[in-house]
Amino acid sequence: MSDRINHLFAELKKQQADSCFISSKANVYYLSGYYTDPHERVIGILVMDGIDPIFLLPKMEEDDARNAGWEHLIVSYYDHENPWHSLQAFLKKQEKEPAVMAVEKDHLTLYRYNQLQEIFPDAAYIDATPVIQNLRLIKTKKEHDLLRTAAELADLGVKTGVEALKEGVSELEVVATIEHTLKKQGIREMSFQTMALFGSKTASPHGNPDKTQLEKNSFVLFDLGVIYQGYCSDITRTVAFGNISDEQKQIYDTVLEAQERAIDASRTGTAVGELDKIARNYITEQGYGDYFTHRLGHGLGIETHEYPSMHSDNTLPIEPGMCFTIEPGIYVPNIGGVRIEDMLFTTNYMPLELTKYPKTLQIIS
Amino acid sequence: MSDRINHLFAELKKQQADSCFISSKANVYYLSGYYTDPHERVIGILVMDGIDPIFLLPKMEEDDARNAGWEHLIVSYYDHENPWHSLQAFLKKQEKEPAVMAVEKDHLTLYRYNQLQEIFPDAAYIDATPVIQNLRLIKTKKEHDLLRTAAELADLGVKTGVEALKEGVSELEVVATIEHTLKKQGIREMSFQTMALFGSKTASPHGNPDKTQLEKNSFVLFDLGVIYQGYCSDITRTVAFGNISDEQKQIYDTVLEAQERAIDASRTGTAVGELDKIARNYITEQGYGDYFTHRLGHGLGIETHEYPSMHSDNTLPIEPGMCFTIEPGIYVPNIGGVRIEDMLFTTNYMPLELTKYPKTLQIIS
Repeated sequence: MSDRINHLFAELKKQQADSCFISSKANVYYLSGYYTDPHERVIGILVMDGIDPIFLLPKMEEDDARNAGWEHLIVSYYDHENPWHSLQAFLKKQEKEPAVMAVEKDHLTLYRYNQLQEIFPDAAYIDATPVIQNLRLIKTKKEHDLLRTAAELADLGVKTGVEALKEGVSELEVVATIEHTLKKQGIREMSFQTMALFGSKTASPHGNPDKTQLEKNSFVLFDLGVIYQGYCSDITRTVAFGNISDEQKQIYDTVLEAQERAIDASRTGTAVGELDKIARNYITEQGYGDYFTHRLGHGLGIETHEYPSMHSDNTLPIEPGMCFTIEPGIYVPNIGGVRIEDMLFTTNYMPLELTKYPKTLQIIS
Repeated sequence: MSDRINHLFAELKKQQADSCFISSKANVYYLSGYYTDPHERVIGILVMDGIDPIFLLPKMEEDDARNAGWEHLIVSYYDHENPWHSLQAFLKKQEKEPAVMAVEKDHLTLYRYNQLQEIFPDAAYIDATPVIQNLRLIKTKKEHDLLRTAAELADLGVKTGVEALKEGVSELEVVATIEHTLKKQGIREMSFQTMALFGSKTASPHGNPDKTQLEKNSFVLFDLGVIYQGYCSDITRTVAFGNISDEQKQIYDTVLEAQERAIDASRTGTAVGELDKIARNYITEQGYGDYFTHRLGHGLGIETHEYPSMHSDNTLPIEPGMCFTIEPGIYVPNIGGVRIEDMLFTTNYMPLELTKYPKTLQIIS
């Protein structure tokens, strides 16, 4: 993990930083190999010239961080102590004081920023987020392998969900069955709240599963993913339970064609916003433009949603080693919604589709 | 919900605010009745004099917010649009400009704060968090009922977990069984990652369940909770699977006695920090002070961990209508850990214990 810290710090130095404080759960994991949810407690990695990196964390997590492989300094604090004062006291002993500190401006709260300013009143603060986003954007071979396994488990989740469909079953029962199967495979945490929506509820892109029961002749939409060794997957499939109308079929075909066109265009050098436009233009041509109300997709890796955002105005060019979702959707009130989502991993040739569950319209009877 | 907005705004006005922007998921739910996880997207409620409250949210969530009962203004944006610009354009039309804006300093990121400053460069910013924390601190009758139901479901979770114990079962299988049962009851989301730890793994207060298998004669620790209609529960129980040693029994008895002493002291007027000291002093007298490495507990309600933090230096006096956990623990490496946690609801007399699963040491054979 020290390689990643060194790499980050070298990049930040080019922007005149002489120190950085990285405190988001995802970036702390990326830099330390220690995966923890601190809730409201402070954790962070402080890197400065001339001193070993410091992990600031609650006393009770000290052993866990060591067991995860952290070999550098630790400054820990009890719950009744002020973590910033513990850090300040330690640095005072080292006679260290930052001049330009890089922090994650999209993560650090105003409250914590004010506390950092109090202990380092003379420091200037710059943004570390773009630099670390760029590092995380291009995945290594090992990260690819973890994402691929996470995607395989997402495929299993959809398969399990489809097999659990029967008249009268509730959305939450299907969710429970999916998660039960995945937990038995060793999955501790889903990458977000598992979605199984029936009938007209599919028309909300952010709908919540509840006790709604499955009726014949309706759409079923699954959106789910797992966290596998710290890496997230994300897949969406829509299937027909019984017969669906011609218009519903047409919506399905439109989404599928839009998705495949965007996947096919996911080549090195193409701007990610271009992919959104390709899918959106096709859906608009088919008369459903007003019903595709969200962006095409999002990057994923340690976080389910990470850099880059796949919206039409994003000019970031695709490079090999990026991982993102392609997930167009059409949501028509009362008629229902269809979304089809895959995880792609870009190469110097065609993108790899990490999620592989079939996409031709499945009629479950 | 408008009552809550009015109440909050009246309190903030006493601090000279003429506007506030509330954007944390929990406080947005508290004020609007709309429960959503925006991930990295911006949501927020803007309240200003002389204009109806404004809900800023993604286009695709507009209908969901209306369905949840939001009757005031909505300013929505597509994913490729800048939400702050949408808000700015709307306010310009209304000829409105804030002078003193209250924001949640413990939630608002530096990045979003800078964006607010850009669109309202002349405003001063004060902290809304202490005010809204104080409002949320004292729960209503309706909130009590929701917390009580959430607690009953947590009890069911522990009961399900205990019944699932058998030699060779894995921690994650037990977690899967617990969550399967709760989802069938209509629970969509656990309030945090369900914990079932076996044997020496109980010695980590933040341990993670994995494929570790249950062996005879060991501790089993459950820590879990559900979200029921937006309100969280949290319970911990430790049981013995087979026989345990005299020292393990002594640890159990010490934690239980410390917990009961703290519960008994949870009366109106007592400082919450006093409860931590009562439990900690007893554990220290028994020789285990170094192994109780965290605070006594935390408030809970819309969030699993919310105000107040139950640590020794907290002088906040108890009032009727507060809800918090009492959860001392002793964690001895290689010997194991015991934690016993209940949710309390304070009254003008004795506190109510919302979680009711038995606490006398259970020997499962």
